[in-house]
Amino acid sequence: MISQRPGDRLRRHLPILDWARGYDRHTLASDALAGLIVTLMLVPQSLAYALLAGLPPEAGLYASVVPLVVYALLGSSRVLAVGPVAVVSMMTAAVVGEHAAAGSAHYLAVALTLAFLSGALLLLMGLLRLGLIAQFLSHPVISGFITASALLIAASQLVPLLGGDFDALHGPTAAIGLASLALLLAMRFWAKPGLLRLGLSPRSAELLARAGPALVILLAVLAAWSFGAKAAGVALVGAVPQGLPPLTVPLWDPALLKDLFFPALLISIVGFVESVSVGQTLAAKRRQRIDPDQELLALGGSNLAAAFSGGFPVTGGFARSVVQFDAGAQTQAASLFTAAGILLAGVALTPALYHLPKATLAATIVVAVLSLIDLRIVQSTWRYAKSDFLALLATVIVTLGIGVEEGLVAGVTLSLLLHLWRSSRPHIAEVGQVPGTEHYRNIERHAVLTLPQVLALRVDESLFFANARALEDRINAAVAERPALRHVVLLGSAINAIDASALDSLRAIDQRLKDGGLRLHLSEIKGPVMDRLQRSDFLEQLSGQVFLSHHQAISALKNAI
Amino acid sequence: MISQRPGDRLRRHLPILDWARGYDRHTLASDALAGLIVTLMLVPQSLAYALLAGLPPEAGLYASVVPLVVYALLGSSRVLAVGPVAVVSMMTAAVVGEHAAAGSAHYLAVALTLAFLSGALLLLMGLLRLGLIAQFLSHPVISGFITASALLIAASQLVPLLGGDFDALHGPTAAIGLASLALLLAMRFWAKPGLLRLGLSPRSAELLARAGPALVILLAVLAAWSFGAKAAGVALVGAVPQGLPPLTVPLWDPALLKDLFFPALLISIVGFVESVSVGQTLAAKRRQRIDPDQELLALGGSNLAAAFSGGFPVTGGFARSVVQFDAGAQTQAASLFTAAGILLAGVALTPALYHLPKATLAATIVVAVLSLIDLRIVQSTWRYAKSDFLALLATVIVTLGIGVEEGLVAGVTLSLLLHLWRSSRPHIAEVGQVPGTEHYRNIERHAVLTLPQVLALRVDESLFFANARALEDRINAAVAERPALRHVVLLGSAINAIDASALDSLRAIDQRLKDGGLRLHLSEIKGPVMDRLQRSDFLEQLSGQVFLSHHQAISALKNAI
Repeated sequence: MISQRPGDRLRRHLPILDWARGYDRHTLASDALAGLIVTLMLVPQSLAYALLAGLPPEAGLYASVVPLVVYALLGSSRVLAVGPVAVVSMMTAAVVGEHAAAGSAHYLAVALTLAFLSGALLLLMGLLRLGLIAQFLSHPVISGFITASALLIAASQLVPLLGGDFDALHGPTAAIGLASLALLLAMRFWAKPGLLRLGLSPRSAELLARAGPALVILLAVLAAWSFGAKAAGVALVGAVPQGLPPLTVPLWDPALLKDLFFPALLISIVGFVESVSVGQTLAAKRRQRIDPDQELLALGGSNLAAAFSGGFPVTGGFARSVVQFDAGAQTQAASLFTAAGILLAGVALTPALYHLPKATLAATIVVAVLSLIDLRIVQSTWRYAKSDFLALLATVIVTLGIGVEEGLVAGVTLSLLLHLWRSSRPHIAEVGQVPGTEHYRNIERHAVLTLPQVLALRVDESLFFANARALEDRINAAVAERPALRHVVLLGSAINAIDASALDSLRAIDQRLKDGGLRLHLSEIKGPVMDRLQRSDFLEQLSGQVFLSHHQAISALKNAI
Repeated sequence: MISQRPGDRLRRHLPILDWARGYDRHTLASDALAGLIVTLMLVPQSLAYALLAGLPPEAGLYASVVPLVVYALLGSSRVLAVGPVAVVSMMTAAVVGEHAAAGSAHYLAVALTLAFLSGALLLLMGLLRLGLIAQFLSHPVISGFITASALLIAASQLVPLLGGDFDALHGPTAAIGLASLALLLAMRFWAKPGLLRLGLSPRSAELLARAGPALVILLAVLAAWSFGAKAAGVALVGAVPQGLPPLTVPLWDPALLKDLFFPALLISIVGFVESVSVGQTLAAKRRQRIDPDQELLALGGSNLAAAFSGGFPVTGGFARSVVQFDAGAQTQAASLFTAAGILLAGVALTPALYHLPKATLAATIVVAVLSLIDLRIVQSTWRYAKSDFLALLATVIVTLGIGVEEGLVAGVTLSLLLHLWRSSRPHIAEVGQVPGTEHYRNIERHAVLTLPQVLALRVDESLFFANARALEDRINAAVAERPALRHVVLLGSAINAIDASALDSLRAIDQRLKDGGLRLHLSEIKGPVMDRLQRSDFLEQLSGQVFLSHHQAISALKNAI
């Protein structure tokens, strides 16, 4: 045990103490610039994602102030940008919509409660150090889920984008929506090359291009105002309350909390997985580290903060964090600057948002989620592993066809079952001696020497309840087919564990071999496996011997009868 | 591919064709004796287990005729004795009791339907060759379940044994019950030694002792009849219809079938697991084999037969099969003799059963299930593996405290989760060179040589979604702590598979190492794993090299910068 000073522990749980000490003017300048850029990106996104979650636009601003401050204090990533994100906002809408009517005060309260529960669960998982729980979402499942969610989100934005269904669209709204969409896409693909041609440095061009959506918002407001969009019946954001985030309290309704428990758990895990994966990628670029258990605490704190300040579930955003990193953020002070920027926007800019068409926000969402759709993974997973492909496919189909929760659950369940199924059918190779060496290889892949009285099997999997019988079957078959057989040797180089069921199987195999006049031997059993076998009476009962190396086993049995 | 003659396939699915050809007088004599002994054992058991299942006694006789004939035609075990067994009968009572009032005609019909559904599921699993499904019941779970069930069964027999609760027992009934119990226990422990002392051969003594319960039944009938038990208010078996098994039809009620689906699945799997494990053990003693998929078909057929001939769910009985084996049964003709014996009993002996006290049958059940209680496994599992112990404990506690279905489900779920949890935290050893050799071992267990610029890690587990992050974390930590590090080598001798998530993790590790100016190398990757990696672009992107042996890797990196 390494002795820990009390300060170490405090610094571990309050990472701000780590970076605040050496803070200087140079770092301040970098962080302030990064904070400004992220603010410009986050203003339109926070409004849009609030609408996506079925909430009034100001909820997005509120969710982007106090949660960011809390994350800045607790987060172990120096550059993660927390706030509302598309997938979690859509999951929020799906869950809250089941318990409250859209637009009602109750809807707002349920969203707060969801954020509260999600925060509490994250905090609890952090205290129990359950960061590992996130890995039960396999990558194909999470990719499939995010792609399917992005498709659902994009589809859900068609009505606000066009002002109605395809066959009943509202002309002026559709014009604004499609113009916004075109402008955003143009910004996305051409802003950076254009700025480069104007002589800007690549980094400046990249950062300035990220402010594109904010510019489109500004243009849309000016256009809607000057062309009288309101009179033409275009849906506008309208009056957004001006001021600080309010103090709010989640509902204390046990029945509701029980209903929200599982959805909140899924939202927490999805948010955590996304957040940690981007956090780890960015930290590694600077040879820094993030601590998954501390991230659980930090995201838990952020969501509790969202619950008490008028927000909804938040997590670390992928694109936003990359921008914060590229903009040169050195510490979480950048998030403090972003929070200050959003606070300022909420206090001063909301009157300007009155004329913002909702169709423009819909266009913002569509463009943002396009980057989440990853179709290449379908092809690469198909080529690499069929079982992963099946899990991916089930996730996508169930998410699109039934719902987001069901899609995640189907994907996780199927990937666990497929993993178990795969490990329940282990690769068992009969091995023989490569002539002139002490190496033993698969008789089906190599020209090797075998003895008629010896069956040497290498199991390429740990032995546990789900695959123990496969070994029994294999040995039973060989014994029934080969009358000359006298010895069976189990080569344990790839057996990392043997559980109690597999031990029983080994006992049964040994007993059956004994009954048939044969003997069971072991070779190359690993240290930890051997330690455990010695805690049972298996080795005392064993009909044969335990050999250190497989070559010793074969040498000894060559002349045995 | 081995070409298969049509006859092979037919013989595989009708094993009777295999043994009926060479049938001779000597085999006939052995089988007839075995059939007689099993009949003597099965008559009291079949009556008792029918009462345990909440059914009239004749249902037990009916369940022991046609199902045995069907198993004799289809079963791949030469000595398995099929019929009603204690645990399945209790599960039947628990399920049917939820859908019908005890003693009603509907109760009987639901039991038939359960047998039908269970038979259909077994048949389906057999056709889909899902014999492997049974192995998801780990041994500690099945042992815990059987022990807990045996305790529940024994407890449930106290009221019939005593004629009432402890504080309100019925004197004459309790006298008969306790006397029967004492006699049965005495038979069990002393009959064989006593017969040996009388000069019988060990085998004859053993077999004769097995007829003990039939003798006790006979004595009980005589005693009850001569002492006027009926007038004293002792519950008797009463009138049992005399005759052949009736033709019955299961209920065709979709709602009921849906409700019974999951219980029928559990009953099928429990029955199949018990049946296959005793079948395999006995077959191996004669170097024979049983075919689990064919057993599914045979047990499926037996249960369908039970459903159409007035029975209830049946399976291969442990004690009964051992007796059939010990009595010298050579083929399933023994089961045909047993079926004939039970048929005869049903036609001719039922009037004699009128005076049989139910308390004696309760005593039969208690003695039979005592042998199922295995408390040693609790201790040995505790010593061998804590996770197996937890699964065992959960199964026992939930089975006793909540119910049999819940107990099984809790045990299976927990054992799967614990297995995943264990493999999600793989043993990762840093390895170094054993001086003067080409061997590389764990630096914490051996005095080995390491290089400051090289980190060599051996992962003792296949890499898949649930453990991929553990490797990432370990490498991230090492890289952050050791500034001199330039190369990371992953030693793959114990990695039997790498799934798509783990491949993504390896990509991420490689990318992060690259970003930090380090390189990732692989050594001793197995053939099948390498084949799969070559189907992705990972090896092309890899920052380092792939080495055949770990020693080659270290030799090459020793002088690299």
